[in-house]
Amino acid sequence: MKILANPIPWPNGHKCAVSLSWDVDVESGLVYRHREATNKRLAARTLVRYDANVAVPRLMEVFKALNIQQTFFVPGWVIDRYPATVDLILEHGHEVGLHGYMHERSNDLSPEKEAEVLERALQAYVKRVGTRPKGWRAPAFAFSDKSLDLLIDAGFDYDSSLMGSDLPSLLKNANGDLVELPIEWTSDDWPQYMHNQDFNFSMPVRASSRAMEVFRAEFDAAWNFGSMWISVWHPFLSGRLSRIQAVIKLIEDIQQRGDVWLTRLDHISSHVRSLMAAGTWQPLVEQLPFHQLNDLD
Amino acid sequence: MKILANPIPWPNGHKCAVSLSWDVDVESGLVYRHREATNKRLAARTLVRYDANVAVPRLMEVFKALNIQQTFFVPGWVIDRYPATVDLILEHGHEVGLHGYMHERSNDLSPEKEAEVLERALQAYVKRVGTRPKGWRAPAFAFSDKSLDLLIDAGFDYDSSLMGSDLPSLLKNANGDLVELPIEWTSDDWPQYMHNQDFNFSMPVRASSRAMEVFRAEFDAAWNFGSMWISVWHPFLSGRLSRIQAVIKLIEDIQQRGDVWLTRLDHISSHVRSLMAAGTWQPLVEQLPFHQLNDLD
Amino acid sequence: MKILANPIPWPNGHKCAVSLSWDVDVESGLVYRHREATNKRLAARTLVRYDANVAVPRLMEVFKALNIQQTFFVPGWVIDRYPATVDLILEHGHEVGLHGYMHERSNDLSPEKEAEVLERALQAYVKRVGTRPKGWRAPAFAFSDKSLDLLIDAGFDYDSSLMGSDLPSLLKNANGDLVELPIEWTSDDWPQYMHNQDFNFSMPVRASSRAMEVFRAEFDAAWNFGSMWISVWHPFLSGRLSRIQAVIKLIEDIQQRGDVWLTRLDHISSHVRSLMAAGTWQPLVEQLPFHQLNDLD
Amino acid sequence: MKILANPIPWPNGHKCAVSLSWDVDVESGLVYRHREATNKRLAARTLVRYDANVAVPRLMEVFKALNIQQTFFVPGWVIDRYPATVDLILEHGHEVGLHGYMHERSNDLSPEKEAEVLERALQAYVKRVGTRPKGWRAPAFAFSDKSLDLLIDAGFDYDSSLMGSDLPSLLKNANGDLVELPIEWTSDDWPQYMHNQDFNFSMPVRASSRAMEVFRAEFDAAWNFGSMWISVWHPFLSGRLSRIQAVIKLIEDIQQRGDVWLTRLDHISSHVRSLMAAGTWQPLVEQLPFHQLNDLD
Repeated sequence: MKILANPIPWPNGHKCAVSLSWDVDVESGLVYRHREATNKRLAARTLVRYDANVAVPRLMEVFKALNIQQTFFVPGWVIDRYPATVDLILEHGHEVGLHGYMHERSNDLSPEKEAEVLERALQAYVKRVGTRPKGWRAPAFAFSDKSLDLLIDAGFDYDSSLMGSDLPSLLKNANGDLVELPIEWTSDDWPQYMHNQDFNFSMPVRASSRAMEVFRAEFDAAWNFGSMWISVWHPFLSGRLSRIQAVIKLIEDIQQRGDVWLTRLDHISSHVRSLMAAGTWQPLVEQLPFHQLNDLD
Repeated sequence: MKILANPIPWPNGHKCAVSLSWDVDVESGLVYRHREATNKRLAARTLVRYDANVAVPRLMEVFKALNIQQTFFVPGWVIDRYPATVDLILEHGHEVGLHGYMHERSNDLSPEKEAEVLERALQAYVKRVGTRPKGWRAPAFAFSDKSLDLLIDAGFDYDSSLMGSDLPSLLKNANGDLVELPIEWTSDDWPQYMHNQDFNFSMPVRASSRAMEVFRAEFDAAWNFGSMWISVWHPFLSGRLSRIQAVIKLIEDIQQRGDVWLTRLDHISSHVRSLMAAGTWQPLVEQLPFHQLNDLD
Repeated sequence: MKILANPIPWPNGHKCAVSLSWDVDVESGLVYRHREATNKRLAARTLVRYDANVAVPRLMEVFKALNIQQTFFVPGWVIDRYPATVDLILEHGHEVGLHGYMHERSNDLSPEKEAEVLERALQAYVKRVGTRPKGWRAPAFAFSDKSLDLLIDAGFDYDSSLMGSDLPSLLKNANGDLVELPIEWTSDDWPQYMHNQDFNFSMPVRASSRAMEVFRAEFDAAWNFGSMWISVWHPFLSGRLSRIQAVIKLIEDIQQRGDVWLTRLDHISSHVRSLMAAGTWQPLVEQLPFHQLNDLD
Repeated sequence: MKILANPIPWPNGHKCAVSLSWDVDVESGLVYRHREATNKRLAARTLVRYDANVAVPRLMEVFKALNIQQTFFVPGWVIDRYPATVDLILEHGHEVGLHGYMHERSNDLSPEKEAEVLERALQAYVKRVGTRPKGWRAPAFAFSDKSLDLLIDAGFDYDSSLMGSDLPSLLKNANGDLVELPIEWTSDDWPQYMHNQDFNFSMPVRASSRAMEVFRAEFDAAWNFGSMWISVWHPFLSGRLSRIQAVIKLIEDIQQRGDVWLTRLDHISSHVRSLMAAGTWQPLVEQLPFHQLNDLD
């Protein structure tokens, strides 16, 4: 039976693509959600600083040992405040995508504010990285109805915030397009591991063995059906000592499975554009803006 | 020991009945719950559009390959906006039931508004499907104290929103009756899989292997005791690549178990009416309206 | 090592005591929590009516077949509205304890209102049952600082609402005492099974196999250490078809384990009073009122 | 691959350090969270009094039999109200750390109030224990931006409330330093076991077998990588009969594993200071105050 309607050819005969992407938020999300209280919430603050102080350096070692390059989304504020973290990621050959300035929920902002925030984030990125970013992930997946226009105008190549497909799709507006590399909360480590009252987010913390049942089911589906799986992990959660072994084991299993293209998101986006240019494969196209909705229309 | 008080004879000597029913809400529930914000919540919107773009076509392929017909409840707004989805379901021999217009919680509406919404939903249904609907599922199971009257007046044959029995029952008012094909949150996939902050609904996402422990226990009980099990699944959740295999495996196991009547809800309702007409079996009867409750009565 | 500080001798050389107690709330809790909305929430209403229509009769059959008598706590309103349910429980030799009138949270009531509610509940009980109740369970475990005085004045023998011990204890005021037969949320089936938006209570529904891990650990501890385990189950939850088999299996295992006193709560309370009268064993005594607390005292 | 950036030498060639620390809150947290309602919430009050009446004495027996000394954090109010509990802990050779006065969330207090609370807690401690406390755990991990200054001025040696590292670190201000012995919600038993509506905290209660998957993963990581694991357990939760066996089994397994330094937190802190004095090892240093954060800086 035809489970995948429009199979994509992956390069070099790979059966599927996997990208382990990480959101390196450090304090930015805490500040954005709990602005006035953040300065006094030292425990939460140290928890997320673990991103920069401990987990990102650890991931660099792990990925180097396993010989993989992956993608890290970083808010502009983190680039400004933790430049050494960004440098470290780049030095190891990983991709740095952009992730707001202060982890703003774009869909809570006015269009003017969203544009201003993006501009500020871009300045931070360009100043430190020296190039413009190819990839965007909306903080909290809060991609707004103005985001596509802004991202296309800013020259992004792809987004990885939406949830409408199992495969890369194409987001179009009147001026251009973005490759969409979709994710979903199922691939996020917050629902598995995050319990922190300072964040007002209290899941029943699971062992990594249980969380990996969820993540591996995503990978297995990608492998079985030839699709793609993108993790949305956070260094301070999945990079914790008690969980890093499960991450390492998963990567080793992926590598031993063979036929898996384990790579950076920008490489997947480039591959999609090559296929489109060659006429080999066409993604699902979503033309934006979507119809405006209200309950009486 | 007598676990089931009033066993029902299923046709052709089947031990039990199973119906895998699906609610195809696309954006309707999001609009109803978060009216003003929906237009800006692109991630949630793409997530539920996966219903129409990906999951329903996938389910069509799966059910065709497994040679089953099932029931899909669709809000009127979705019929208006996604007519091809409805056509596809019908072309494959499945039943389309009605599910509100904009996924309204009937028990939050005034009686006048509830009647108006039902009328609008019926118009959308009749216009596209060409017949009147036999089955109703109240969005969010929010069947109101006026719903039975309205549904009987509108000529429905059955409802599948209430939770008072393990078997079909009969809901009566002064003018007529509906067959009730009961469900419960235990058979719903939201508590297993749904984590989405745009919906303000955050369960700890489980692997399908764990969710299937819950659903299979429902099926096993139906099989052991000769009752009925009705799933309440959502294409964008249970039709996801990482979960569809578990759905396929469950159906295959049901088929190999033998003696299971795996069918559409309208067929179960018809069977119940035949039994009643023949005097072979009488369901539990619930006469409405229920007594009005307050804590001083 | 001494895990249990003050072991109790159980009758006939039993190693431990178990009592499977049930709260038969039907609509009372829904009315109390969501007074104005209840009349319109038909799905939730049918769900809890399953208590009376389906689950209590089923439990009668199961317990008769397994030859056990247990305890059912019933609010006065339910006694008034579902007298046949109460009669059925009594006819099968089970104990009926009292459980408020309309499932009121006593600790939210004024002392006058709490007294009034208790009186009304007692009248309903005495009128139907013909005796005064021996046992009380505070609805929602919301035993107030006035409850002990009221219950002693009303002639109760025991309470089963508090959480301070592994064994029976004694609650004393200036006028008398109650045997306390303690419970805890760990032994309640709501955290395992209850997901219902009309109740505003949304746990991630578990299979009974997982819930039984929790309940069996309580039983195993009672058996290993010679203590007591009291379930707090609800017919519409644990009596559901997909869960009743797990309940039956547990009871069979308890019976096959041997040396377990599986009995009604009033029998346990009587045993405690016999031990005290004989000077064989003395329970932990809690003298009420507890010291009034505030953060500056 | 180098998982731990800065390995610490543990004494006597031990591979890792483990400290099972307990917060003995009794009613203090309930009072602080629900001030006016506490006096009427008898069930919750008895639940937490189980700390003093049952669980701490039980833990004393267990730890004596297993020949270990551990650390108990106690609020000043509990020291004042339950002096025998504190005496018992001390008599068994355990450490008593300080844990606020009435379990106050320091980061919700004004600086003046926080100082006042600390002073009051210190007085209670010194009066009963006869020495000043070495260790502090902020109630609810709510370490504020003023806490370090206050704790250093008060002569504390270490804190165990923050979440920024896998190993001991050093918190410095202009006047001195504290050793930080970090914890995280993953090692806390509330997300595993706590369901109590009087506390407005409702996790889906797990069996200890499942909770231990989470805790043992923390221990295994410490053992594999040579780091440290500190539990944050509560006597009324993890000391419950149905869970104490899992705790005993874990300790036995730790002891049989060998090479594990299972000890009090003050001993770990002293070891860290010895290493620093000897120049053998230097911890990560966090200089406070952290930069003040706002979303426009």
